[in-house]
Amino acid sequence: MNPPITDPAAPGTATDPRSLRVDGSRLAQRLEVLGEVGSTGDGGCCRLALTAADQAGRDLVVGWMRELGLAVVVDEVGNVVATRPGRRPGPPVMTGSHIDTVRTGGRYDGNLGVLAGLEVLETLTDHEVETEHPMAVAFFTDEEGSRFAPDMLGSLTYVGGLPVDEARAVVGIDGAVLGDELDAIGYAGPARCPGPPPVAFVELHIEQGPVLESEHVTIGAVTEVQGIAWYEITITGQSNHAGTTPIGLRHDPMLAAARITVFVRELCQRLGSQQVGTVGQVELHPNLVNVVPARATLTVDLRNTDAGALRLAEVELWRFCDKVGWEEGVQVAVRDLARFDPVAFDARIIEWVEATARDLGHSVRRLPSGAGHDAQMLARVCPSGMVFVPSVGGVSHHPAEHPDPADLTAGADTLLQTLLGLAGVASMGGRAPDVGWEPALDRPREAQT
Amino acid sequence: MNPPITDPAAPGTATDPRSLRVDGSRLAQRLEVLGEVGSTGDGGCCRLALTAADQAGRDLVVGWMRELGLAVVVDEVGNVVATRPGRRPGPPVMTGSHIDTVRTGGRYDGNLGVLAGLEVLETLTDHEVETEHPMAVAFFTDEEGSRFAPDMLGSLTYVGGLPVDEARAVVGIDGAVLGDELDAIGYAGPARCPGPPPVAFVELHIEQGPVLESEHVTIGAVTEVQGIAWYEITITGQSNHAGTTPIGLRHDPMLAAARITVFVRELCQRLGSQQVGTVGQVELHPNLVNVVPARATLTVDLRNTDAGALRLAEVELWRFCDKVGWEEGVQVAVRDLARFDPVAFDARIIEWVEATARDLGHSVRRLPSGAGHDAQMLARVCPSGMVFVPSVGGVSHHPAEHPDPADLTAGADTLLQTLLGLAGVASMGGRAPDVGWEPALDRPREAQT
Repeated sequence: MNPPITDPAAPGTATDPRSLRVDGSRLAQRLEVLGEVGSTGDGGCCRLALTAADQAGRDLVVGWMRELGLAVVVDEVGNVVATRPGRRPGPPVMTGSHIDTVRTGGRYDGNLGVLAGLEVLETLTDHEVETEHPMAVAFFTDEEGSRFAPDMLGSLTYVGGLPVDEARAVVGIDGAVLGDELDAIGYAGPARCPGPPPVAFVELHIEQGPVLESEHVTIGAVTEVQGIAWYEITITGQSNHAGTTPIGLRHDPMLAAARITVFVRELCQRLGSQQVGTVGQVELHPNLVNVVPARATLTVDLRNTDAGALRLAEVELWRFCDKVGWEEGVQVAVRDLARFDPVAFDARIIEWVEATARDLGHSVRRLPSGAGHDAQMLARVCPSGMVFVPSVGGVSHHPAEHPDPADLTAGADTLLQTLLGLAGVASMGGRAPDVGWEPALDRPREAQT
Repeated sequence: MNPPITDPAAPGTATDPRSLRVDGSRLAQRLEVLGEVGSTGDGGCCRLALTAADQAGRDLVVGWMRELGLAVVVDEVGNVVATRPGRRPGPPVMTGSHIDTVRTGGRYDGNLGVLAGLEVLETLTDHEVETEHPMAVAFFTDEEGSRFAPDMLGSLTYVGGLPVDEARAVVGIDGAVLGDELDAIGYAGPARCPGPPPVAFVELHIEQGPVLESEHVTIGAVTEVQGIAWYEITITGQSNHAGTTPIGLRHDPMLAAARITVFVRELCQRLGSQQVGTVGQVELHPNLVNVVPARATLTVDLRNTDAGALRLAEVELWRFCDKVGWEEGVQVAVRDLARFDPVAFDARIIEWVEATARDLGHSVRRLPSGAGHDAQMLARVCPSGMVFVPSVGGVSHHPAEHPDPADLTAGADTLLQTLLGLAGVASMGGRAPDVGWEPALDRPREAQT
């Protein structure tokens, strides 16, 4: 690769785009102000999609976009795209994420990606940078899916994965209809879905897991998003007296549930580090200390970045359910709750993020994402990728979620330089940049490696 | 043993007590009438202790006792003892059980033992049998413990295991005080507790388990009541995202709970057929499909007829909890919920029940009781034992609980002949019985074997 950024020890000139850095305190300040909207009083946020709190958060962010002179477009499902023009016409290099939260969410999940994108554009304006491609920052509707299923609804609709009519007809957990709520908060915009594919899409996000922190690595270059398979397993046995029923005559659904739980762990260990599996939910009936249960219901969440391996894990789970049903004399019914195939990010974007972070002097590693993100939807229509920063304690979807402030700035700088490399720099302070700043994806592949 | 009953193929004479049989249809009829009191409309009964329904059931049974000319005595905690005089003065050979039920109980648990005892006494009166010892049928207060803990409260108080003041002060699940409720339904009687020890005590009960039915055996000679140890195990781990948390970094309380559940089964299999163990209750928090739980709470019910083996099982469980806590990086807190030592019934009574059933032509086997019964309390003060009849499908504490009608009669006949042998027959129809009918427990031990 021929990175646009050289050794950071050699300071760039006033017209060297490699010298550009975000204003980390301005970004932190915006995160704090947005975090007050729908604040839960404990450091956390509740801005469920399309509620009044979401509306207030949207209005605040759109106001900031307009203050920066960006062209703000709202589409039919409330996705907001704010564009800064480039030297060339046509689609932008895009960044962004979401600003809706889960019910007991934190201030960074999604919000960081949106406000860091805004910070990137403000930094470019501050330094009078004209990019080759336009650049845009977006926030997508209902990424969390906490109020309206499925999650990533807005970005899915943006890329044509869900018709607008169907999206608007979705009924929320509170009985509200998505289209009505969009209309009510004034975010059913005129722009059509599917929206125009960007040149590329890169999203900054907190990791929401412990890998980067535990390895003391600052930047994650996200390689892929895990595929997910969710199952609900209902085991019907024979309820009996816990004292009077000999072990050999029992048909105990809890024992079967326990064996499946232990099997899921063994399966993950056997299939290797990309395979994770979780039994997060268990219900027994009648759930009494002295009664062998009649019924156990448990969920299994299997994830893998490799589609074939995930399918193998699923098949092994089904087989084990049959086996344990036979051995324990219980009925085991397996129901499919949800399934998403893995998404691999564009190899060029992954390399670009990695090289950019390294050139900025940050430690970096590749890693998959265990959670779903808007970037995986954009990956359907353009080269896409993600930048992760560590979550302190691996905590997420919790009021306490936060990155270290230095990591937050490092992540935003990595986003800035990654996007600049993708968009290309036409001029800076009215002059041509010191080195060749053609957009990265335009360059011949061989020159990049 | 020199059984008082010979081959039933050789019919007895008019003065041969061995020829006596209960009236099974009269017994079934009384069970049906009593089952209507507090009927739940689905074949089941709800007569929680000392409620208006219990009062109505008590009044009905006491009425039947008085109709038979029995001397009815009510004690301070509402235990009712109805006595038929013998040739000798002094304490009676006693049978009985309880008439309170669980909230969704059946018509046979307890009620069978009381009404079969009544049927035995009526049969003796019908045939003008004078026994050596008096005979009595009792029903004890609050055997189920569903409203007032502990279970077997009435018989425990009868044998001096619980002071009357403490028993009366017990507060029920509905906030009612036991003494107030006794007063309110008019069953705080004048007789003092502890009551006089009987000569012997034998209780007829449905098995509440599947052993007799599965082996096609009609009569169970109960050898002992299992000791019980109940534990609540609270496992605290680290809640995390099910997708983003690598397997190696997890501290999953559900996995620990599953491993304990599997261990409990393996422990039972290793310790042999007398050891049973059940995980009947599990709660996860937050109990979501895509979250590694923060906390799991489960109960373990361990039972064994051997006190040492039960203690060994408990120690092994504690050790395994320590081990699994260490291996999974979770905190495991084990709390003692309840503990009763095993009770062994009197060897002479067990032999007597077995020989009696065999001589009546019924298949019989020895077996332990997995459930607690009033007889285990009486065993503290007199030679005691139990007669089991099969529960269809092993079902109990359920509206569907019932014995086969033929087995019900077989059980009552076994109870009749067992009690007759223990009480001795002085005369029948005004004449001395054909053969020696001294009370069984008075005879020299060597003559009985």
